[in-house]
Amino acid sequence: MLEVNAERLTNSLKEMAEIGFVSEEKGINRLALNKSDKQARDLFVEWLKDEGLHINIDPIGNTAGIREGKSGLDNPVMIGSHLDTVTEGGAFDGSIGVLGGLEVIRVLNEQKIATERPVAVMNFTHEEGPRFKRNMMGSVAMTGAMPLEEIYAMKDKDGITVLEALKETGYLGTDPFLKAGAFLEMHIEQGPILEMEKKEVGVVEGIQGIIWYQCFYEGASSHAGPTPLETRRDSLLGAAELFCKLRELAVSRQDRTVVTVGCCDIYPNEINVIPGRTDFTIDMRQFDRDRYDQMKGLIAELVRETAEKHYLEWGMETRTEVFPVAFNKGVVDVVESSTKELGYSYRKMPSAAGHDAQLMHAVCPTGMVFVPSIGGVSHTPRELSSYEDIAKGTNVLLNTALKLANAK
Amino acid sequence: MLEVNAERLTNSLKEMAEIGFVSEEKGINRLALNKSDKQARDLFVEWLKDEGLHINIDPIGNTAGIREGKSGLDNPVMIGSHLDTVTEGGAFDGSIGVLGGLEVIRVLNEQKIATERPVAVMNFTHEEGPRFKRNMMGSVAMTGAMPLEEIYAMKDKDGITVLEALKETGYLGTDPFLKAGAFLEMHIEQGPILEMEKKEVGVVEGIQGIIWYQCFYEGASSHAGPTPLETRRDSLLGAAELFCKLRELAVSRQDRTVVTVGCCDIYPNEINVIPGRTDFTIDMRQFDRDRYDQMKGLIAELVRETAEKHYLEWGMETRTEVFPVAFNKGVVDVVESSTKELGYSYRKMPSAAGHDAQLMHAVCPTGMVFVPSIGGVSHTPRELSSYEDIAKGTNVLLNTALKLANAK
Repeated sequence: MLEVNAERLTNSLKEMAEIGFVSEEKGINRLALNKSDKQARDLFVEWLKDEGLHINIDPIGNTAGIREGKSGLDNPVMIGSHLDTVTEGGAFDGSIGVLGGLEVIRVLNEQKIATERPVAVMNFTHEEGPRFKRNMMGSVAMTGAMPLEEIYAMKDKDGITVLEALKETGYLGTDPFLKAGAFLEMHIEQGPILEMEKKEVGVVEGIQGIIWYQCFYEGASSHAGPTPLETRRDSLLGAAELFCKLRELAVSRQDRTVVTVGCCDIYPNEINVIPGRTDFTIDMRQFDRDRYDQMKGLIAELVRETAEKHYLEWGMETRTEVFPVAFNKGVVDVVESSTKELGYSYRKMPSAAGHDAQLMHAVCPTGMVFVPSIGGVSHTPRELSSYEDIAKGTNVLLNTALKLANAK
Repeated sequence: MLEVNAERLTNSLKEMAEIGFVSEEKGINRLALNKSDKQARDLFVEWLKDEGLHINIDPIGNTAGIREGKSGLDNPVMIGSHLDTVTEGGAFDGSIGVLGGLEVIRVLNEQKIATERPVAVMNFTHEEGPRFKRNMMGSVAMTGAMPLEEIYAMKDKDGITVLEALKETGYLGTDPFLKAGAFLEMHIEQGPILEMEKKEVGVVEGIQGIIWYQCFYEGASSHAGPTPLETRRDSLLGAAELFCKLRELAVSRQDRTVVTVGCCDIYPNEINVIPGRTDFTIDMRQFDRDRYDQMKGLIAELVRETAEKHYLEWGMETRTEVFPVAFNKGVVDVVESSTKELGYSYRKMPSAAGHDAQLMHAVCPTGMVFVPSIGGVSHTPRELSSYEDIAKGTNVLLNTALKLANAK
């Protein structure tokens, strides 16, 4: 099996990690289209040029280097992710996908391997949400999920528009949006599962659907002393029973559905007063679309039933929703077989977070590779993965890309 | 059965309610030993003089009028409560007990009824907590529950001591602390039970014990997406189960134990983060001392067990505790028989709040009469009871006092 140059990959990652580095505590700040992000883009373009690639910068600033295949430059097998970070980010989220893709191309060049179809490496613009409050902006624009004019007009907190920021950095490209033949993204897991199960690679089957509900239960506040239990309309007690039942429901499904109550605020929140109102959120995630839809129905029923049992008024609204994505089975199979052939331990798993791959899935066969996250954390300077694991993930990427690029 | 003059009683209550009246919204402000409280005391003393009573003002300012019995002035059957209010108080909490006692004496005088033992009416100093942060101060001092010097040195928020405030109002008395032969207190219920059950009188059996706990559960915050349910240490989920079990426990006791979780704060309180820490309070009330002590043990066990089940750290400390008081059975029986003889509907019940009667219970046979609270509220200008119900309660007081004063 072909393998990447782990040392070269590590060095590129370390060089990239210096750009936007603030301090050990504050981590890396390459907020999309800021000065450090521009510097990172410039370095990336330099590296693309070093490899003699055809460079494509599109109208949202997505930057790709295309290595010609026997079929020409069209419909490349695209490998990519993002170089931008959150305000206090780490060195791995996004970067390993872009520089892993670059390493794949470096190996192909070094070994003078000709492929049927072209192979490209892509850096998407503004994958992280913070600056313009619209994450995965580059892949959203490229796949037509939102009109470009609308995206251009979005403003950051200083009133700077996306269009102005693109002009300022020199990344308002004039090349066309690329059409990929397939898409591969390597990313850190951002969760504890691979580390916990001591697996070297995650073969990502798709992206979990996520729904966020904002809910309230409303009963009646009254004095904790003289109010008998039977006549109470205790909003917190109703909510507490709901929280327990939501967990029981998720467990009973035996399908890796997760439900989380992350926010809970009660009123008046006084030691001797029965809480009249409880505001809370529900976060539900499930990978399979049918099961996801079923869960939505079951949750709504439980919220209503429990409220009625406790004589409470209730409200429930959807704050955000992302439908589940099941990646192309053919691509997932190739990722899995490459992993097996390389002799790595792995598990098939959904991604619990959103990625550019989610958008790309709508337009071409797509798959993802996960690298274990040490401590399961991300979006923090403590984000960490081992360079050895990253090299293993990149080997999977390399062999998968080769197979896809040579497939008939 | 002897009855009071309802009109006279109502007029006295209304006259008293004008003193310290601020506005409909702000209610009455007769914070202990302020100018309005002094004015109320002066009016009360004037009324005591009108009835030709022996006036006794003790070193904490407790003011009594004693109506001589055949046995003399010692060990009177004392009826009383307090004329002070909270900052934005109502016209009934405290006042009905003092002016009800005065009305009893007015009837005895009017009807020229001689009693074996003397009957006294008492206005206790600083029953409400706000000014010097020590409620039931007058009965605490009189019963020796705290040394007088310690009480004298207590300061309000302006640095004025109790001693200075007593001197300023002219109520630093030099008469001895009275020794009561029995004590009766009429008070508004401050809860919804009598109104709900359409009862005219509450025969108070004692005062519930109250314990307040401050607790925390601590697990681990982590991302709501990739963290499997089985590996979570969700502090809110543990707390929710505890809240449900606390209620089940209280209900299962079938002894009117009430448990309330009034405060609950979770951290970090973010929609997609498992709550790592939950701070909460528990308020438990029970009337019987043995059952009260049992509940404390059962609650502590439940807090620990539930924490361990969810792999949580936990903490629990007592913030405040008042032991249950069971009033003298003989006195309670006389209150009940008087109520029956008057033909009033009633229920026997504990008081859910503290009263001067709680302190008096330690030194003499004591009982209480409750008058229904409309809407169950108190310590607010919305506090309300019907004058008809107050007259009924005062009739119970009158007949009970007569029996006690003539008992061998």
